[in-house]
Amino acid sequence: MIAEKMKNMVANSSAIRAMFEEGNRLAGIYGAENVYDFSLGNPNVAAPEAVKQAIRELLDEEDPVVLHGYTNSNCGYADVRETVAASLNERFGTHFEGKNIVMTVGAAGGLNVILKSLINPGDEVIVFAPYFGEYRSYTNNYDGVLVEISPNTENFQPKLDEFEQKITPKTKAVIVNTPNNPTGVVYSEETIRRLAAIMDAKQKEYGTEIFLISDEPYRELVYDGAKVPYLTKYYANTVVGYSFSKSLSLPGERIGYLVIPDEVSDSEELLAAANVATRILGFVNAPTLQQKLVAKCIREKTDISFYDRNRETLYNGLRECGFECIKPEGAFYLFVKSPAADEKEFCAAAKKYNILIVPGSSFGCPGYVRLAYCVSYGTIVNSLPKFKELSKEYFS
Amino acid sequence: MIAEKMKNMVANSSAIRAMFEEGNRLAGIYGAENVYDFSLGNPNVAAPEAVKQAIRELLDEEDPVVLHGYTNSNCGYADVRETVAASLNERFGTHFEGKNIVMTVGAAGGLNVILKSLINPGDEVIVFAPYFGEYRSYTNNYDGVLVEISPNTENFQPKLDEFEQKITPKTKAVIVNTPNNPTGVVYSEETIRRLAAIMDAKQKEYGTEIFLISDEPYRELVYDGAKVPYLTKYYANTVVGYSFSKSLSLPGERIGYLVIPDEVSDSEELLAAANVATRILGFVNAPTLQQKLVAKCIREKTDISFYDRNRETLYNGLRECGFECIKPEGAFYLFVKSPAADEKEFCAAAKKYNILIVPGSSFGCPGYVRLAYCVSYGTIVNSLPKFKELSKEYFS
Repeated sequence: MIAEKMKNMVANSSAIRAMFEEGNRLAGIYGAENVYDFSLGNPNVAAPEAVKQAIRELLDEEDPVVLHGYTNSNCGYADVRETVAASLNERFGTHFEGKNIVMTVGAAGGLNVILKSLINPGDEVIVFAPYFGEYRSYTNNYDGVLVEISPNTENFQPKLDEFEQKITPKTKAVIVNTPNNPTGVVYSEETIRRLAAIMDAKQKEYGTEIFLISDEPYRELVYDGAKVPYLTKYYANTVVGYSFSKSLSLPGERIGYLVIPDEVSDSEELLAAANVATRILGFVNAPTLQQKLVAKCIREKTDISFYDRNRETLYNGLRECGFECIKPEGAFYLFVKSPAADEKEFCAAAKKYNILIVPGSSFGCPGYVRLAYCVSYGTIVNSLPKFKELSKEYFS
Repeated sequence: MIAEKMKNMVANSSAIRAMFEEGNRLAGIYGAENVYDFSLGNPNVAAPEAVKQAIRELLDEEDPVVLHGYTNSNCGYADVRETVAASLNERFGTHFEGKNIVMTVGAAGGLNVILKSLINPGDEVIVFAPYFGEYRSYTNNYDGVLVEISPNTENFQPKLDEFEQKITPKTKAVIVNTPNNPTGVVYSEETIRRLAAIMDAKQKEYGTEIFLISDEPYRELVYDGAKVPYLTKYYANTVVGYSFSKSLSLPGERIGYLVIPDEVSDSEELLAAANVATRILGFVNAPTLQQKLVAKCIREKTDISFYDRNRETLYNGLRECGFECIKPEGAFYLFVKSPAADEKEFCAAAKKYNILIVPGSSFGCPGYVRLAYCVSYGTIVNSLPKFKELSKEYFS
């Protein structure tokens, strides 16, 4: 009875829901504090105190008809878009104006808007494994074809030789996600330069436009002074998708933006398409109070030291147990090599110790598992003896 | 360069934008108070004072990690869904539970979620002219085919004989919108009973499931004690889409819900599909602060007397000028017969008097124009002498 396209997705999602329900079931038996749920990227850090203050000020200062009303453009309030552009220019030396910014219902909304604007049925969208599994659904929404580049498990930088071979005249977009979910790896400037050079050459070779879509919800979550290049400066046909979900701990509020620079081919047409896509996909506009809020809090940032402590403690703890893992420079995930050939078996073994983790095959990279360490520090510390016990099943 | 499907839409939207810009241009020349912009359904009534108070309380009382965090289910907070269900049961004698409610990014988000869940390419979606033009875009998003029933300009109740003839084995959904945009008409209980009987008979005849989608953003905006039947009580395969945009004056905040009753065929599968569609379309969940807010304000309602005064004044004023119009029982629109054969000419003539109105052909009903009277009372009063002058071009 439901749409054909939805049937597989509903079946798969039941598996995820089963995992979630298993977590609840375990919490019911053992107490939530004795369940080590590393499965979800839902920040455990509260929004900065400035967020609360800013909402109070907006309620006091703004006309409610404006604060809660439709925005004149589906792309958002003009003043908010200008504030976002100015902040980017200040931090990254770019030259955006308000018109280059489209406020979106989080990064997920933004990715759907840009793919709806660009993709014809059969167009190819390239992703680098391991990658956020939702890219497959978003591409499928517009009848695009997802093309995977296999993972480089040595350092999880993208495999650029394979990338070059897999670009075809049907390639319309390439999605990169750095800092990366699920590995926490930051793509180096050298990687970005080579990637851009390959795309420029292929555009010339085929006489096509190939868009680089940079999905950046973790841009601010970097450690040890790591630098995240701003991709519009390396490749003209770049569109950036951003979310305040992690940087301000507002994932449920659904607020982010797209950047469509003037350097993009036919940028005015693409901006007009993004405006229409925002409307007809049913977003209409990004939530208005949240738009005004992020403009007021544009210089605020969540407490990175919290995640950094989790990262160090979990990474070191797992290494001491014998697990293999790249030390991440960003985001809040560890991507750990499964000691069992089938990582789903390893996930099942972990569950015996009330440890919930996600198989790498969900990210196009079997043989690994993802741990989201955006949990409380107590969960990290208390999980380590359990990981020690788990490790003895493999390294004894 | 943009997707083929978007090209026409971008071209059409430029026409709307041109109108909007024309309004701004006129306001710049004559002053905003001398421009009578009846083009947009953006409420001019502030949200009830209780909204502000409720947000303050949420900031004081709720853990920010929960208040701004992802909801456990993509369908929304369990407590909010239960509050919505209880409110419907109390008001309409229904028997919903929290699981029957899917919190959505406004009614537009909800309609996209349910159409994504149901529609296969080529499936037919029936609408009754005049209808909200976005239904065409939403249906097109999922490669459905919009089938129009011609308008009954006598009283703007749906033409049920034509409806019966146009239902085919490909008919998957029927969208009704009562109180109606653009006419303000409320479909009578008799109409609903006949419509339901026709759909029941056609389901049996073809052995198909045909869904009645009731788009109800104007449910609470009714006058003179008009009753709006609750459609789930008349037809089993009914899904309701609701928005708080108008009832609480929160259109920019993007908050509404779907009701998927147990009586719907395979309702569990459809609820699971709606959950997945919410996620993969990029909504992820309805904005969380707004979810908690509408639950707190579930008994609040915007000041209907404001719209009622506008309705009476504008309706009577236009009639006195000689214009023909059905007196609406709900929503905040007047649908006026164009005194010129081509209503677009009439819209152009109105613009000479700084009056901005929308041609009926945008709603599948040429020969009429829509006036949104959700403007300030001053705009209504001051526009009447201008309408008088305009009328003299036609009735002299």
